[in-house]
Amino acid sequence: MQILPPALDDLIEAFGLLPGVGPRTAERYAYYMVKHDQASANRLATALSALHGGIGYCEKTFALVPADQTISDLYSDPRRDKTIIAVVADTFDVVALEKTGQFKGTYHVLGGLVSPIDNITPEELHIPELMRRIDEDEVKEIILATNASVEGESTALYIQQQLGEREVLITRLARGLPIGVDLEYADQITLSRALTGRQTLDKGIS
Amino acid sequence: MQILPPALDDLIEAFGLLPGVGPRTAERYAYYMVKHDQASANRLATALSALHGGIGYCEKTFALVPADQTISDLYSDPRRDKTIIAVVADTFDVVALEKTGQFKGTYHVLGGLVSPIDNITPEELHIPELMRRIDEDEVKEIILATNASVEGESTALYIQQQLGEREVLITRLARGLPIGVDLEYADQITLSRALTGRQTLDKGIS
Repeated sequence: MQILPPALDDLIEAFGLLPGVGPRTAERYAYYMVKHDQASANRLATALSALHGGIGYCEKTFALVPADQTISDLYSDPRRDKTIIAVVADTFDVVALEKTGQFKGTYHVLGGLVSPIDNITPEELHIPELMRRIDEDEVKEIILATNASVEGESTALYIQQQLGEREVLITRLARGLPIGVDLEYADQITLSRALTGRQTLDKGIS
Repeated sequence: MQILPPALDDLIEAFGLLPGVGPRTAERYAYYMVKHDQASANRLATALSALHGGIGYCEKTFALVPADQTISDLYSDPRRDKTIIAVVADTFDVVALEKTGQFKGTYHVLGGLVSPIDNITPEELHIPELMRRIDEDEVKEIILATNASVEGESTALYIQQQLGEREVLITRLARGLPIGVDLEYADQITLSRALTGRQTLDKGIS
């Protein structure tokens, strides 16, 4: 016997495809849409339909750009220093770094991280394009801003090896205690990294 | 400066309307849609667009039904005992009770619970229709299957008062220890309810 209308079952199933959404959460989302008028459902439907037609990838940095653009504003802007590249795994990492308002260089989105388990080889990442940029833009520094995971570290290592004879400063984001976390609550790995990467005061800690 | 394409920003905002979805989760959902092909996005978009056109409310039980139906299968089925009504707040409570496979009566969906805070008065719930069903179907028992919250209890109390002189058996779902929970981990209220509602063994505990 059919307990719920097929239209609702379809929606629950479709919501269930989202990452981390189980049957209960999918039901909750679907039920929210039932309770609200068609306008709420239409808004999400329209945004979904327009998504792939409205986005593209920057030819230089591989960050997401509006479909009518080929180069990201974060690259074409003359105020951005093209000799410094922050290498990140995904577009949302660009958003996170941009929010700091501190970085005036450019980005390079790899489109993932080397991961044998997920079958992602270095060939699938935008590493050759990074090398080309390093040569063309006479890049002085690349900041390997990948996560401190096995995948992040091995991707960073792979890029380091690919750089070969190029005279580029390679840096990693600092690892250490996050602001607002007490020393006694920090995990061992973070604490040992904070210790290894300790800075002398006259080197300028703001 | 625009960091993300407007099409993606729109989608993140639309996902953010879902209950319990913050900016980070909305970003995660939107990013999932970016990574997958247009087909995934279209599937959810289609389900959303079809939702309100595909559902209706049962005229008797107020459960959700396919748009081309006026009476729920759970009421029209001759095997369902129309003299027993389980009164629930929402359609999904029907699903939960149906999954037990134990209940052979019919349902009545109130469409919410009395809640002064949320400005829901008894007049907005399907209580007059419930009274009509009790009279028309010569109902013998109504199971007040509302939650054990303040709203659930006060709604149950209100319905009890509305029944007036009608000779109907009123029951509540049993409160007690959930299966698989150790006595020592049960909260005080549950435990005191389990104690109050204790059952003599010969009354038949399976």
